[in-house]
Amino acid sequence: MSSVEERLDLVSFNGDGLVPAVVQEHGSGQVLMLAWMDREALRRTLTEGRVTYWSRSRGEYWRKGDTSGHVQVVRSARIDCDGDTVLLEVDQTGAACHTGTHTCFDGSERDLHPVMS
Amino acid sequence: MSSVEERLDLVSFNGDGLVPAVVQEHGSGQVLMLAWMDREALRRTLTEGRVTYWSRSRGEYWRKGDTSGHVQVVRSARIDCDGDTVLLEVDQTGAACHTGTHTCFDGSERDLHPVMS
Repeated sequence: MSSVEERLDLVSFNGDGLVPAVVQEHGSGQVLMLAWMDREALRRTLTEGRVTYWSRSRGEYWRKGDTSGHVQVVRSARIDCDGDTVLLEVDQTGAACHTGTHTCFDGSERDLHPVMS
Repeated sequence: MSSVEERLDLVSFNGDGLVPAVVQEHGSGQVLMLAWMDREALRRTLTEGRVTYWSRSRGEYWRKGDTSGHVQVVRSARIDCDGDTVLLEVDQTGAACHTGTHTCFDGSERDLHPVMS
C-alpha cells in the first residue's frame, strides 16, 4: 500500500491548486454535494477520516461539521481516469447542505429538466 | 414551467464560462464521471436530451457517444444550492469511461483511501 504523499501525487490539481470532490452518501447512493480541496485538505481528509474542504469564498479550510455538527466520515476516496476529480463515499450526519436540505441538489427550484421546448 | 433560457440563467458558470457536471447513472446510482459544460453545452443537453460537454482539452463540443456509441440520455438535471454544479441523472449505454471501464472511478489504481498512517 502506498503512502499518503504517493497517493496525493496521483491527483491533478488545477491551476488554482484545487480539485473538485464529489460526495456520495454510503448506502443511499445520493450525491450530496460538490466542493473543492487543495492538497492539504485532501491530505487531512485521507489521514483523519473526516472530510475537510478548501473554502474558495472564505479562503480557509473547512472541516465539514465542525460548526454544524453535520460531519462526513470517509468510507472511500477515489480519483477518476484523469486524476482531476475525487469521488468520496461518506457517512453523512444530518443535512449535507447548509440550507438544511439533505443534499445540495434537493428542492424543485433546483430542477433544470425537463424544459419546455 | 420556465423556459430553457430562464433555467440557464440559474446556473453560475465560472470565470472560464464553465460549470462541472456530475453524472450519475439512473438505477444503479453509480457516479459515472465528471465533465464540464458551457452554457451552450448545457442548452443542448437540456433541449436534445442527449448529454453534450465542452472538452477543455480539445476546445470543442463533445456529444457523448457520437464516436463511441456510449450515449447518455438525460433523466434529470439539477443545480446545487449555489448554482455552480450540475447533477445529471442519465441512462448510460456501454462504458462511461473512455478507458473502457463502466465508470471513470473504477480500478484499484484509482483508490486513494484507506492509506497507511
